[in-house]
Formats: sequence, C-alpha cells, structure tokens
Amino acid sequence: MPVNLAAPAAADLLPVPGVRIGVAEAGVRKAGRKDLTVFLLEPGTAVGGVFTRNRFCAAPVQVCREHLAAGQGIRALVVNTGNANAGTGEDGLVRARASCIALARHLDLAPEQVLPFSTGVIMEPLPLDRIEAGLPAALADADAAHWLRAAEGIMTTDTLPKAVSRRVQVEGRAVTITGISKGAGMIRPNMATMLGFLATDACIAPQLMDSLALALAEGSFNRVTVDGDTSTNDAFVVMATGRAGHAPVESLDSVAGRVLFEAMQEVARLLAQAIVRDGEGATKFITVRVEGGRSAAECRQVAYAIAHSPLVKTAFFASDPNLGRILAAVGYAGIEDLDQSGIELHLDDVHVATRGGRHPAYREEDGQRVMKQSEITVRVGLGRGAAADTVWTCDFSHDYVTINADYRS
Amino acid sequence: MPVNLAAPAAADLLPVPGVRIGVAEAGVRKAGRKDLTVFLLEPGTAVGGVFTRNRFCAAPVQVCREHLAAGQGIRALVVNTGNANAGTGEDGLVRARASCIALARHLDLAPEQVLPFSTGVIMEPLPLDRIEAGLPAALADADAAHWLRAAEGIMTTDTLPKAVSRRVQVEGRAVTITGISKGAGMIRPNMATMLGFLATDACIAPQLMDSLALALAEGSFNRVTVDGDTSTNDAFVVMATGRAGHAPVESLDSVAGRVLFEAMQEVARLLAQAIVRDGEGATKFITVRVEGGRSAAECRQVAYAIAHSPLVKTAFFASDPNLGRILAAVGYAGIEDLDQSGIELHLDDVHVATRGGRHPAYREEDGQRVMKQSEITVRVGLGRGAAADTVWTCDFSHDYVTINADYRS
Repeated sequence: MPVNLAAPAAADLLPVPGVRIGVAEAGVRKAGRKDLTVFLLEPGTAVGGVFTRNRFCAAPVQVCREHLAAGQGIRALVVNTGNANAGTGEDGLVRARASCIALARHLDLAPEQVLPFSTGVIMEPLPLDRIEAGLPAALADADAAHWLRAAEGIMTTDTLPKAVSRRVQVEGRAVTITGISKGAGMIRPNMATMLGFLATDACIAPQLMDSLALALAEGSFNRVTVDGDTSTNDAFVVMATGRAGHAPVESLDSVAGRVLFEAMQEVARLLAQAIVRDGEGATKFITVRVEGGRSAAECRQVAYAIAHSPLVKTAFFASDPNLGRILAAVGYAGIEDLDQSGIELHLDDVHVATRGGRHPAYREEDGQRVMKQSEITVRVGLGRGAAADTVWTCDFSHDYVTINADYRS
Repeated sequence: MPVNLAAPAAADLLPVPGVRIGVAEAGVRKAGRKDLTVFLLEPGTAVGGVFTRNRFCAAPVQVCREHLAAGQGIRALVVNTGNANAGTGEDGLVRARASCIALARHLDLAPEQVLPFSTGVIMEPLPLDRIEAGLPAALADADAAHWLRAAEGIMTTDTLPKAVSRRVQVEGRAVTITGISKGAGMIRPNMATMLGFLATDACIAPQLMDSLALALAEGSFNRVTVDGDTSTNDAFVVMATGRAGHAPVESLDSVAGRVLFEAMQEVARLLAQAIVRDGEGATKFITVRVEGGRSAAECRQVAYAIAHSPLVKTAFFASDPNLGRILAAVGYAGIEDLDQSGIELHLDDVHVATRGGRHPAYREEDGQRVMKQSEITVRVGLGRGAAADTVWTCDFSHDYVTINADYRS
C-alpha cells in the first residue's frame, strides 16, 4: 500500500509538444505486461542525464554515457523492464548497443542518437530478440498523450505508476513539464534514481542540460532512500524540446531560468517522493531533516544513517516511539568529533531529546501520537553549525521482506 | 531459531580461578528474569576493555573509560539488562556512577574499582533503586561456577545464553579461558560488541591488557554484523586473574603470548559468531570473505556493504540465488576506482561470476543448492591487490521485523 499516493489520471498528465511515447508488451520476463517503452523526440531536443555511481553500473548506463558524449543529438529512448542488463560483462554492452541499433534502424537515426535503459533482475542476459520483436508495436503506439502508459511501462515492483505535470509561464509563453519515475526497492540513488524521465517544451541551451539534470537530481532523487541499496541502473534524464517558442534559457540564474528550475524541481521532487511513498512494503512516509551541522554533507551523512537503520525503520512500522534508536544512529553516523551533549531531537512538534538526553517535558504518549501518523518529520539538531539537509524515506515492514524474498518467484 | 547454536551446558564452562559471579532478578524492566549480574575479581586481576565508537555512547561506557583510566585496579563489574542508560544525558552519568558507588560500598572498594555495564532500551532513566535493591541477592549468589547463569543474566533479545571455555598450556601451567557474550540486534560492533566478557587465570602484564582486548575484538566482535546498527553500549572486557601461577606474559609475540592469544582469539571469535547465529530472526549464518583488495580496509568496506544490504539479506532468507544483488552491493561499497571487469564471485564452491559477468558455466541450480544451506560462504575477488578480510553476518527475515517492531511491547 503506497503512502498517501494515488495513481495519476491520464487526463491530468499534460502532453509535452515534441515528445511522443509508445508502449508494448514484449514479454521480456513475463508475458502480458507493458515492459517496453520508447520515447521519440523531435529534432533539436536538448537532453541531459545523470546516472548511477554504482561501480557495477549496468551496460545501458555505460552506453547512455557514451551516446550522450557523442553529441549527435538524442532522438529516441528505449526502455525495458524485467531485466537490468547489469552484471552481464562485455556481452551486456553488446546487447545494449544492439537495442539502440535496432531502434535507430526503424527511425533512420544513428545508433548514438538512441539512449537505452533497463531495469529488473541483475546478472541475466538481456533477451534482445524479444525487445527487437516488440519495437514495431511500441512504435505503432507512439502518441504524445501516452505519459500514463509510459509510467506503467517502466514499473517493476512499483504498485502504482508515478507521473507529475506542471505548467508555468516562461518569457510570456506557457511551458509544460511532465515527468515519470519508477522504483520501489534497491533505492538509494546516488546521482540519479532507478529511472526518472522529465520532459519539457521549454527552450533550454543544450550546454545547460547536464548541470540542470544534476541540480534537479540533487534536490529530489538524490535525497530519497528506501533500503540503502544503490542500484546498478539509476538514470534520470531531462529532455527539453524547445517547442514553447520562447527565447532560450541560457542560465539557471536568470529570471526565466529560476522560474523554470523551480517548476522542474517540484516535479522531480514529487516523482522522487512518489518512489518512497511506493517503497517496497512502505506504510509511512518519513522526512528526516538534520540541522545545525558544519556542512550539508555531514547533515546528509546523519540523515542517511537514520534513514537506513533497520531498527529505526522497524520502529516506525510498529508506531513505537523507541526513539533512542534515532540517537544511536546519529551517534554511529561517522562524525568523529560529534558532541552528544549538543543533540536535539524533534518528532514533528514534539521535543523528544535535548542536550543529548530525554527532554524533561517529553511524554511517551506525545511520541506515540506522532508515530501513528502516516507522515512523520524527524528533526535532529547537531548544534555545531548552520548547515542543514533533508532526506526522505519510508519504514521497514513485513511486506518488505515478503516482496524481496519472493521477487523472482 | 539460532543457526547451528545450542545453549552451553553449565558443566562445559570452566570456572576461572579468581573470578566469582552472582546473578539476581532485580526487576529492572520486567519481573521474574535474571537481569543483574556482578563479577567479583581477586586483587591483582589485570583488566582491559574496548568500547563502542558510537558518539552517542551510553553513560556506563563513559564511566568504564574513566574507571579504567583511574588505574586503581578493577575488582568488580556490575551489569544490568532491560535498560541501556544511553541517551540519558548528565543524569545518566550520575546514575551509572551511583551504581558503582553502591556496589563498592558492599565490597569495601573505591567506586573507581567497579565497572558498570547496561543494555536494553535507550533513553529511559536507569531504575537505580531496583539495581541497588538487587545487589545483596546478586552478591549472595556469587560463585566461581556461575558462568552459565551470567550468560543468562546478560541476555536481552538473545534466545540462548552464549558462553565458551578453553584450556591451554602456558609455560607449563594449565590456563583456563572462559567468556560470555550477549547481543542479537543493534549489532554492528565498532571496536567491541554489545557485551562480551572474557576471563582467564593466565598471568598477563597489565599494560598489555588494552591492546590485547583490542586485538581480540579485531578478530572477532569487530567482524560481525546483524543489522548494521552500532550500539551505544558495546563493551568487550578481558580479565586476567593471574592465578595460573606461570611467569607473566610480557608480550603477545612471545611463544607463551601467541599460544594464549590464539586460544583467547578462538573463544572471542566463537562468542562473536554466536551473536550472529542468534541474530534477531536469523535463519542462516553467512561468511563474507573479500579477497584481492589493495588493503584489508577496502575488503572490509565491500564485505560490510554486502553484509548490510537488505536486498542481499532477504535473498539469503528466501534461499533465492538472486546473486546480482551481491554485485550491486560490491559496486556501491564506495571504492571509487573499482573496475567491475575484475570482479569474481563464488558461493561456497560455485563460481557464479567472472570478470564482472555471469560465469558461462554457472547454473541456477548450483546457486540454489548452496543458498538452501544454513551456512554459506560468499567469496568476492576484487582483482586489484593481495589483501583480504572476513565478516560474519546473518540473513534478514520476517522475524527480524517482528522482533524489532514488538521489542518494547
């Protein structure tokens, strides 16, 4: 059961001029499910991406990096689920490239103009024949209105499709932003997420796209975690078709750049949070805010220690205000010179601990009241600086074990 | 259900001359369970300890460090379960010191000659009155034969008492080594374990004791993990009464020092592994061996990434050879310049992956066969050096969630 998250209605998702999407059932792993998605981009679309920092990065991630670097202009994306094409060695690279060649042939493009994406089981050979056989159906399905189908087509253990649209005014023109994401487990993105695709018809200078993708990821996908497992296939791609017709955004610091960035950031953050809300077995959505650090990096370090602790996560699942577990996680987060007597802990509006010990006014029933909520904010004060950062996560339930013990069966 | 671990028989545990132990039911948290243990040491006993590196270390850990540094000779230990006296601020320190004062008064010692230990719930005030009221019964119970009672007296979520004895010849004298440990969750010791006590009647130079305790911990408690949560209360104490009457061991590099160290190391390792075998919800005992690293530290880093991955741990629980999850954990372990094409993976005798991809001869049924065992060795080759290290862990089951969701209820 996702936490306060509903499937979007197709009618709420705004088509992005210049982007068409087609989805097919290719039987990559199982029959009868949408598992092959193609994005078709008009010429002139600017594309940027960020990818997993897992050193065991998947073959399609390596090919994406090569093709983006080739600079021939990205015109299509091919996305399969059911197989991650990771841990597949040289043969995996050959198959990832072959999937690009196959789609490029249909569209009369160079293979370097296609980006490949795969998610699913690791260390199994990619069934290239099924993907190739599924491409004609996916291409025949291509339509600007198919964002919801695409969000469905990239799901694995997700229980719901995840998609968000926004419209903003840039330089006097209406600009559309629509994005989709997937992921529920193996979620601790490092530079990106399992899969996130965000498109806009805004006009953005191509040289801005990579830094834009990175900046968007830093405020969204790079701040969520389900289980601490950084995937081999994380990828977040931003596409700007330029169809809105305004003067190109040359800097994110311009007025137009800031308006656009804020709207895109909101879409990216909602998509990233949707992954946590639909985290495997999740019953609660937890915001971990760490303040008073010497740097944002050390605040993040503490926030992730809390967000990854199985003891903290099971306490949230049980609605048990066993909040000393949070203090323990703060203590082992790895800040060598941390002084426990400076630590403050709030749970929503409840002041739980002060100066490293239980707050004199804290009552168990107050902690209990907050723990029963489906949305909880943990706020830790480190008392050693002015920096802060925030991470979003979920609890750890029986269903997490069930889902991951049975994933392949 | 602990993994291949039985409760020791009282008759198998050898008394250590110079050490008496008393246990009582003090009702620290619940009535009717052994929760207060005292160790009484003859004058001249050399004592060394290592303690948690959690910056939120518990009050008794801070007091232990002070009292060991005071150098007045440790003559008694007081151990309670049911309450960790951690996250309790200044008041917690006052109560930890008061428990030492109370025991010292009974024994006509200085408070600095007593070491206090607490485990249990964090951020609750230590019920000092119950501990003080329980001391006379614990002292009346004191007996050299009470090691099994002590192992029972320090349990929390443990399902079995953990104790090991060995006898070796040192300088022509029979020397006894007996140790006990406790812990099942919040286990990722960093310099020590939840609680481990090891006593010998060997004669060891007092100045060796701290480095001996550290060296023993490095080969045992500092290499096990259940859930990655480093406790606030980890403590491992080594006591040498000198009653065996041989010439004092002045160096661990001497012949006598090596014999003694090896026997003590075996006891410490068995006690540490017993914690994993009795890990919360454990159904499998997993040895993670990482070889071919540039340093032992980077091998450990990779081994812990594997041992902490919820995805890897749930796959072991399910006996599902979803072994790509292990490769993913290797990849995100944080070795920035790791080359995936050098990675090898074995599961016991089965060669699963070579050069970063699935081994051509690997068959799913071979992986399945090993995954069904209750004891499994994961062996990863990094292919970049000659260093190696080993970590012991357990799987992640429904019972882990049940135990930790219900711990306080």
